[in-house]
Amino acid sequence: MTQTGTDDAVVLERHGEIAVVRFNRPDRLNAFTDEMCYRLIEIFDETDADDDVRAVVLTGTGRAFCAGADLAAGGDTFALDDDPATGGAPADTGGQVTLRIYRSLKPVIAAINGPAAGVGVTMTLPADIRIASEAAKFAFVFTRRGIVPEACSTWFLPRAVGISTAVEWTVGGKTVSATEALERGLVRELVPTDQVLDRALGVARELVSGTSPVSAALTRQLMWRMLGASGPEVAHKAESIGVYVRGASDDAREGVDSFLEKRDAKFPNRVSEGLPDLFE
Amino acid sequence: MTQTGTDDAVVLERHGEIAVVRFNRPDRLNAFTDEMCYRLIEIFDETDADDDVRAVVLTGTGRAFCAGADLAAGGDTFALDDDPATGGAPADTGGQVTLRIYRSLKPVIAAINGPAAGVGVTMTLPADIRIASEAAKFAFVFTRRGIVPEACSTWFLPRAVGISTAVEWTVGGKTVSATEALERGLVRELVPTDQVLDRALGVARELVSGTSPVSAALTRQLMWRMLGASGPEVAHKAESIGVYVRGASDDAREGVDSFLEKRDAKFPNRVSEGLPDLFE
Amino acid sequence: MTQTGTDDAVVLERHGEIAVVRFNRPDRLNAFTDEMCYRLIEIFDETDADDDVRAVVLTGTGRAFCAGADLAAGGDTFALDDDPATGGAPADTGGQVTLRIYRSLKPVIAAINGPAAGVGVTMTLPADIRIASEAAKFAFVFTRRGIVPEACSTWFLPRAVGISTAVEWTVGGKTVSATEALERGLVRELVPTDQVLDRALGVARELVSGTSPVSAALTRQLMWRMLGASGPEVAHKAESIGVYVRGASDDAREGVDSFLEKRDAKFPNRVSEGLPDLFE
Repeated sequence: MTQTGTDDAVVLERHGEIAVVRFNRPDRLNAFTDEMCYRLIEIFDETDADDDVRAVVLTGTGRAFCAGADLAAGGDTFALDDDPATGGAPADTGGQVTLRIYRSLKPVIAAINGPAAGVGVTMTLPADIRIASEAAKFAFVFTRRGIVPEACSTWFLPRAVGISTAVEWTVGGKTVSATEALERGLVRELVPTDQVLDRALGVARELVSGTSPVSAALTRQLMWRMLGASGPEVAHKAESIGVYVRGASDDAREGVDSFLEKRDAKFPNRVSEGLPDLFE
Repeated sequence: MTQTGTDDAVVLERHGEIAVVRFNRPDRLNAFTDEMCYRLIEIFDETDADDDVRAVVLTGTGRAFCAGADLAAGGDTFALDDDPATGGAPADTGGQVTLRIYRSLKPVIAAINGPAAGVGVTMTLPADIRIASEAAKFAFVFTRRGIVPEACSTWFLPRAVGISTAVEWTVGGKTVSATEALERGLVRELVPTDQVLDRALGVARELVSGTSPVSAALTRQLMWRMLGASGPEVAHKAESIGVYVRGASDDAREGVDSFLEKRDAKFPNRVSEGLPDLFE
Repeated sequence: MTQTGTDDAVVLERHGEIAVVRFNRPDRLNAFTDEMCYRLIEIFDETDADDDVRAVVLTGTGRAFCAGADLAAGGDTFALDDDPATGGAPADTGGQVTLRIYRSLKPVIAAINGPAAGVGVTMTLPADIRIASEAAKFAFVFTRRGIVPEACSTWFLPRAVGISTAVEWTVGGKTVSATEALERGLVRELVPTDQVLDRALGVARELVSGTSPVSAALTRQLMWRMLGASGPEVAHKAESIGVYVRGASDDAREGVDSFLEKRDAKFPNRVSEGLPDLFE
């Protein structure tokens, strides 16, 4: 494990080909700040650009995953400055983070080691897989604070757990147990707290093993983009370009050759060399 | 319980902060008529406008929830008059009702006390939660009557139970048992018939307890609207306005202050004062 | 059972009112070719046009369902010729097939009698119901071959199993067991291999029994189309036309009359006479 991050509030560690992004304010239960937002976006730019990173795991230091917005400012916490450019609403910081995760070229696994509240839970929704501690809790507290859900959760959550559960949890301001989160499909599995990170690393390694990094990046893009598409015709157009460009690639030759020769593939293409635009 | 409705076929009752909307033609198994359609729309206008109402429960008098379209007109039942304005198809009455429920500013719980057929079941699809009697049945009879599903059910149903089950039930004209409805996710839970309304009232009260009415209304709007949105960017725009407007509200101050002071919140904002437009 | 197909690689059989479409290259594990693509599209044109066909079952001869693209061309398998018309990407053949199945006027059931890989599994995603052998496997191998998922699977798969599972399987290039496919909702049920076709035929017969063929065709269209629609208002418009046109039909009169007279309906309308356009 090598720590390569420079900002103390969010640290970037490397476990072989898996990057671990760790919220690191345990004395504040990793409560979320604007600085953490901007650092997270930078970190995903770094993991996208680094061909040695195949997947990203998101976790927290200490007993919490992330307690949500830092309420140190008290009743003014959610009173935002006008956007300097427009004089109106600034872009929600939680949404800036989740849009960046949504666009990640590497798969993302949330290793939810303890309680997650507010943006602490909504931030995990664009992760591909959520693995949680049996002691985790998920607090959708927005309507109890007089605000509204953010981080694009009103788009992501109904697609993760269904509209009925999404409304119940958010309109109701519910705090959901790990067990309920599992039953309703928010998390894929529960493990003891001290095994959450190891399990997430294991799932991440299995997820990237034997696959073309460029194909994986394009596939992740396609799946998430098509989740909002108006019909299969949209996918047909993007996939036709993808199959055409990738079918002629060195990766495709190696993929078929290695399969026919019953050996492990060594894919030559690199994500950092750029991806074809499938959504022109 | 106070009865405030004036139309006998649909009555509006009040159980504290919960409004109960009751189909009330038990001799006709609450079969649906145009008049009931228009009365239902009026009732949701009333519950939206009344700040003393925090949630709405939909149920039926007698042994059925709603038997679907009243077939008293026999083979002409579904032969509609041309729309006077266009000379073409008039707006489906079931769809007028479900669009109104979809836009309700208060959460809606269907307390399905017995059999629901045709529009009797499709009408419940924009409810946030469905609780049913163990003796309920759900009859998707449209293809057996030579017509097609209505009440926007072709949009709502696949999102509630998945496309495979939605096609099976509707194309197949199936009548679904309470158990199957539970297994496939159409209903959240089953209870004995004589407990359906009480259970729904309990869930409704729990759903609204401790939350800001304005935040709850906006959150319900966001979730349902984003269920059809083309991507998280759409949510980001709407939520950014929501967080900005609500973050500066008296409700947000009270929400944070009460939390930090470990006391119940008393939210000052009222739905009847108007909601910000998040979807400009 | 009558065999009516002429192309050996895909045969069309009739089992009463159910058409069975059978991949028929057992020596190649029914590996998919361009010719099979075009023949499949023709077959669905035939089943749509034939009023004696009420549903279509898709299955394979021998021990496999379909092994995916035929790799006989080795490393060049996925290197496609430019589209003659545009000089760019040709339309993905898998997508041409799935778009045709998506538009089928008769319900489609996949009887997955054995392993399904690549296009062998993605091709089944626009089927309404998937029934599989306990010995089936589902291999989402695209990222292991250096290409990307196709056949509009990036649109269909997240809607069948959720985005989290869809990303895990496709980005990870996973081969999924029958049990996992059942748990995650890819298939409706598992049966012993020698019962797959019979079970699919039974489900198909039950699915079409007692329903109006025209209503069933329109309902299937509505459900799948609305799965990508931006909101219930879109469904309201299409359904209003559907209810209006069908409500005045001879089928609707027969549907109500037969119900009130407690006898089986004999619907006079025929799909081959043309369907109203609900999506103008």
